[in-house]
This record gives sequence, structure tokens and C-alpha cells, in this order.
Amino acid sequence: MSKLITPRRLQGFNELDPMRQLQFDQMISKIKDVFEHHCFVPLDSPVLELSEILLAKSGGDIDKEIYRFSKGSTDMCMRYDFTVPLARYVAMNQNTLDFPFKRYQIGKNYRGERPQKGRYREFYQCDADVIGSETLPLVYDAECIALYPECFKSLGFEIQVEISDRNILNGIIADVKQEDKINEILTLLDKIDKIGRNSVIEELTTLNIPVEDSKKLLSVADNKGSIKDIVNKLEGLSNNEKFIQGIENLKTIDSYLKAFGVSEENYIYNLAVIRGHNYYTGTVFEAFLKSNRNFGALGGGGRYENLAEYYTDRKLPGVGMSIGLSRLFDLFATNGLIPEPKKSIADVEIIPLGETLNECISLSTQLRKRGLKVDVASETRSFKNKMKDANKREIPYIIVVGENEVATKEYPLKNMKTGEQIILSIERIIAELRK
Amino acid sequence: MSKLITPRRLQGFNELDPMRQLQFDQMISKIKDVFEHHCFVPLDSPVLELSEILLAKSGGDIDKEIYRFSKGSTDMCMRYDFTVPLARYVAMNQNTLDFPFKRYQIGKNYRGERPQKGRYREFYQCDADVIGSETLPLVYDAECIALYPECFKSLGFEIQVEISDRNILNGIIADVKQEDKINEILTLLDKIDKIGRNSVIEELTTLNIPVEDSKKLLSVADNKGSIKDIVNKLEGLSNNEKFIQGIENLKTIDSYLKAFGVSEENYIYNLAVIRGHNYYTGTVFEAFLKSNRNFGALGGGGRYENLAEYYTDRKLPGVGMSIGLSRLFDLFATNGLIPEPKKSIADVEIIPLGETLNECISLSTQLRKRGLKVDVASETRSFKNKMKDANKREIPYIIVVGENEVATKEYPLKNMKTGEQIILSIERIIAELRK
Repeated sequence: MSKLITPRRLQGFNELDPMRQLQFDQMISKIKDVFEHHCFVPLDSPVLELSEILLAKSGGDIDKEIYRFSKGSTDMCMRYDFTVPLARYVAMNQNTLDFPFKRYQIGKNYRGERPQKGRYREFYQCDADVIGSETLPLVYDAECIALYPECFKSLGFEIQVEISDRNILNGIIADVKQEDKINEILTLLDKIDKIGRNSVIEELTTLNIPVEDSKKLLSVADNKGSIKDIVNKLEGLSNNEKFIQGIENLKTIDSYLKAFGVSEENYIYNLAVIRGHNYYTGTVFEAFLKSNRNFGALGGGGRYENLAEYYTDRKLPGVGMSIGLSRLFDLFATNGLIPEPKKSIADVEIIPLGETLNECISLSTQLRKRGLKVDVASETRSFKNKMKDANKREIPYIIVVGENEVATKEYPLKNMKTGEQIILSIERIIAELRK
Repeated sequence: MSKLITPRRLQGFNELDPMRQLQFDQMISKIKDVFEHHCFVPLDSPVLELSEILLAKSGGDIDKEIYRFSKGSTDMCMRYDFTVPLARYVAMNQNTLDFPFKRYQIGKNYRGERPQKGRYREFYQCDADVIGSETLPLVYDAECIALYPECFKSLGFEIQVEISDRNILNGIIADVKQEDKINEILTLLDKIDKIGRNSVIEELTTLNIPVEDSKKLLSVADNKGSIKDIVNKLEGLSNNEKFIQGIENLKTIDSYLKAFGVSEENYIYNLAVIRGHNYYTGTVFEAFLKSNRNFGALGGGGRYENLAEYYTDRKLPGVGMSIGLSRLFDLFATNGLIPEPKKSIADVEIIPLGETLNECISLSTQLRKRGLKVDVASETRSFKNKMKDANKREIPYIIVVGENEVATKEYPLKNMKTGEQIILSIERIIAELRK
């Protein structure tokens, strides 16, 4: 035998315990269900893309987080999000797709960033996007926002989506004639939550923005409330076209959100929501757990005016929402918001006593056909150890099958929690367990 | 605007049309259901592994099909199957896992082989394995075999699993004292189906195997039938211990298969089943579509005596079954065994006539809450074009909402197939559509 290799995973990579994985998979399946009821369809783009395609935006510049390599003469990357592959797909299929194209994708993405708690190099993300041809009405922005409370309700949680429209801040930045510093300003305004109003004004001063103007920017960005609050506070504050359009957009979205049945508990406007990605051009939003805003944004999204500009001249505006599933699951599990998983998937385990294994298997087959999850303790251990093991794994019910049970076709169904045991026919066992 | 990049996928990589993907996802979900009813639990191992781990078997030799690359000082590979990651996982967690450990994994694997019809470089596979500690009874071999007809029945197909035990041929090869040529002989015997008995005997002669012995090998390998047929034909043919054990194993498995409720229609013994992988040590099996054996094996598996030998001294015997999902789906779809997908996921589409979009959305929300998949034609096209589009996409039902419908709260539900239209309340629409 050669020297053994220490079994280990790559750093920053994770795999859940199978019973946790079951919970994770159930979460995915509930979210899929919400998307499909809104008529989003699944796209399963490859994990690998040509580097030329994936890095089109940066002109081929290598981001050190990206897994990029060559095989033969082919230069390729592992995807780091679903948006670039979506752009590639839509551009490839633009002549056959029906627009608006509503697609979702749930799967793994790859970023070789420094591993830290709750951040993995391989992580699940879940995206729903709507892509239009030439135009895309605001109703889809509202639908993407409405997906958050629906998804989270299906998981048993209440969310609050914080919404803004980038045009509002862009308009006010134009008003104070600081368009050339727009990215720096937005980066600072994005920090209001973290460092506070005064620090933001101070930092704006270092950009050579007059205090008067900084205050004006803050008076817009530092606003949070209902659509009424926002309108009361801001309407008439500027004649800038974008500013006015932004406010109008939020009013329109608000009326759609009500039609989508989104409760006012589940969203709020927050003009300091900016989102890091600089491709968002209109609506932007972030979703927070209502009971624990300090968990940070669990997802976000927004409107981008031109999805596939690197691959086609056709204008393809889109809006999308995203949830960071791996981070969310880790966070919720660590904080006890997801119950500890069961120790076994079995509804019932059948334990042979003596030479009855064949009968146990037959019985398991009959129970399984009626929708039960059934295991048979077939391994070569003593009966006593099998009972001990069933206890340890907290199997809810067991059935011990000895010669007598084989003869009578009546079986002792034992509730392992209460210790109660009743002798029943197969049909009555099924009825009992399906309760 | 910079020069456009032609949008394209990597060669050998695929993505299904979303409506096909829906069918594929439903297939996966049915298979998962079968596995979980047998108490297999999901493991979702990472796509990337350390090269040292993944290539342990070959002593680090690079197989040219494997995607291998470095990032920083880390040498890694994309997984090419689920077995090596399973071995790594079980070795890592051997002290906390309950044995026998029954796990399934459904996901993508990566092999950079020459792309050809139905062979992709990124492909879905689906594996279920049972790992024991020190020993693992044959009942689990039978359970893995029994998963095939159950999985395929849930998809609407009849399968025939062809089963053998490697010990039988190994024993007879020992009998004719040709153990040093065992791999070459097995490779030839594996070809009986393809090139016929006589050609196999001829080729065996080129290995310097006497014709008498070749005929003896063939008389064992070229056997196909029920357990009775096999026993009648072979019992007593050799006193080799392995040979006798192999026959006994098949008899035991047969009795378990019957207990698992596997119909005799769904399996047969075929002693020429060998399986390429040289790590199989006992039971081996391959699954063929009953109506189209010429599709080739849709999956296969078997018993391996030592799963994790490169990572631990502990003996961990296993048995597993696998289905090549991407190949299967491609084959079935191309041959019309999977129906053409619908053109839209929607159960019903709501089309506004005039300024009724908000009411349409409200109506859609109510229908969605009651389990229907509902889309609203919200895009900025003419009413006429929306109707045309609903026809083109074969939406089963539409509801046109004008001012009158908003006022009366009664809506015209139109069956697009029959053209029939009835005016109904929301409750009655729901009742009608849920039929």
C-alpha cells in the first residue's frame, strides 16, 4: 500500500452535512416554485465560459478573484455570476426568444476571494431576471421586488426590501454640477448607514464638494420611508429631469407593488441604497431580514439598461433580483433561524430479528410504494446494536420483524419518542404513518 | 462602443432551452424522490478538488481529459465523477458518519474529451452509493440494482438491468491459469455483444490462450438469462472458490431483488457484463432501456471492496449505481421518447385591454396564491400583438381584462385550444383552471 494522502477539501470550499443539505435543497425547491408561478423559466448555463466572453466588460483584464485557466489553446473561466452568461445566452438566441424573457438560475458561482466566515469560493446564488427588447416597463422591476417577500414567506421569514431609483441621486448630483465625481460621491453616500451623516459630509469635503452641496446631497440620500414620505420630502426639490423621472418611477413601482399584493410591512424606500455594481441604471433594491437587519443585505438587484452591449448592438434592457443562498443558509443555520436538522431521513426503520431479512425488505417495499421513507437495518450487526443505533439516529418509528410477525402478517409499530407500541396490519401501519 | 464579441459557448458545453430544462429538472426531482424514499441522503461535494486528492489513484498522473489548473500555489482539478469526492468525504468524516452511509449526488461533472453527439464536456450524472465499514452485505447491491426500475418507472420507462458478478469470470480465468492476462481477457470478453463469439475466440488466440480454454471462458461469459438458467448452466462447472462464491452471490441477490419487488421483466443475468472501471470487485450491472437496448447502457455500477484506500487504512467497501443523465436526456429527446416541451410555462395569461394593468396584476396575484402559474402581458405592445403572441406561445388559457371586467369583477376565461370563452368570477376561474 502506498503512502496515504490526508483527505481534505480545498480551502474556502464547503459541503453541508447531508441532513443539512436536505434542508438546503428544500429551500431551493420552494424558491423555484415561487419563480415558476411567476412564469420565470430555468436556464442552466455552463460553469465554464470562454474568457473572451466572460471578461468582455473589463476588456479581458484579469480579476484576481476569477478562476481562469487554459486547456489546449482554449482560454476559459469559471463563471463568477449568472448575469454575464445570461447576456451571452440572450445575445446568442435573440432571434428566437420571446421577449420579455423571464429566466431564473439557481446554482454555484466561483470567486477565489479570501475565504472568511460565510463567504465561500464556491457558493450558491439564485437569480431571477426579466429581459426586454428595446424597452421594458417598470412593472417588471416591481415583479422582481415582489419575488423577495414571496420567496422568503415560503421559507418562513419576513423580509424588508429597501428600494431606490438611481436617477434621483444622479439628478441631484447633476444639480450640484459634480457629475465628473459621480462614482466617488455614490460610494460615499452608500456609507451613510455605516459611518453616519457627519462623516459622509466630511469625506465629501475631501472631494472638494462645497458643504452646501454636500448637505443637499445628504438631504436627498438620507431619506427612508413610505412612498408618501419620500414624495412629501423630495417632490419639487429639483427641476432636474432625471430627478423628477426617478421620483415618478418610484410612484409607479409603488402602485404595482400594491397590485402584486406586497404588504407595506415588506418594503420601504431608502434613497441611500446604491448597490455596488456600476451597471445599474434605474431601480435598485436590497433585501434585509425584517427581524435582523444587521445580518446585512441577503440579496439585491436592479435595473440595467443594456444587458448584452458587448455582444450585440440590440438594446436589451433588464431588471433582476438575486439572493445569496449559501451565505443566507450559513447565517440562518448559525443563528438558529433554521431548525437543527433531523438525524435521519427515515420515517420508519424495519429491523429484522432472526432470519427475516427478506420479509423486512418486502415490507419496506410495500411501505415505500405508499410514499413512506423506509430503511431496513440490513447490516451485519447484532439486534441490540441495531436498536441502539435507531435510538441514536432518532428514527421516529421502528418495526421489529421476527418469525412470529412473518407468520401473522401483523407488525409491532413502535413510536420511538413515546415508546408506545401497537400491533397492526400493513394497511393500518401505512394509515398510521401517513397521518 | 467598442468592437462586439461574437457570443458563443465553449465547444462541448451545452445549455438546454428553458422549457426543455424544466423537463430535465422534473426528471431530476423524480429520481431524487426515489433515492430519498430508500433513505439515501444528498451530498453536494464541491466541483473543485485538490489535484493531489483527485489524482491519488494515478499517483498524480495527468489524464488529458481532466480540467486541471493552478491558482496561486494551489493545484486543483474539476471533478470528473462523484466517486473520488465521495471517498474523500467518507474518509474525512469516518468517525462521525453512520454506516452503512447511503448518499446520492446529482450534478455536473467535467471531462475534456473530444465532443461528439450526446457526449458533453460538462454533463449531469446521478449516483447513489452505499458505503459500509469493514463489511457491507449483498442486500445493498440488490437495493442499488432495484433503484433502476424504480427511477425509470417514475420517468415513464421500463429498464432492464443486466447483472453479473466479477468473481465468476475471475474464477474461471484462474481455472485456466491465465490470471496474469486477466485485464486483456476481460476486455475481450466485454466485446462478445459487439463482435460475436467467434471473433472473441480468435482474438483470445492472439493472447496465446489455447482454444480449449478460450471455449471454456466463452461458455461462461456468453450466458444470459434468469437465475435458474445461470445456475443450471454453470453450477458445478468449476471448483474454484471465487467462481462458486460468484454464483452464490447472484442467488442471494436474486432473492433480495424479488423482496424489493423488482419484476423479472426488469432484470436479467448477463455474465458478459464486465464494466470498464477496474475497481469493481464483485457485483457489476448495466441498465438498458427495455424497448431500445441499442441505445447502449444508460447507467451502470457495482461493488468495490475499498472505496477510500488512498486516504485511509480503514476498509470501506461500497456499492453504487449511476445514471448518465445528460446523455440519457439527449438520447430520449432526440428519439421522441420525451414529448416536445410546451412553449410556455403559463397556465394562464392575463391581457390588459386599456388602462387596466393594475387590475390585471391584482388578478394574477390572486390566481398565483391559489397555485396557478400566471403571467401578465405587461409589455408595451398593442393588444392585437399580445393576442397573437399568446397564440404563438400556445398559452392554454387567457383572460382579457377591460374596464367592464374591472367594474363587474367577472372575467372572460378563454380556452385557447377550443376557442370557448366563459364569463366567471375569480373563484370559479380558479376552480376551472385547477381541474
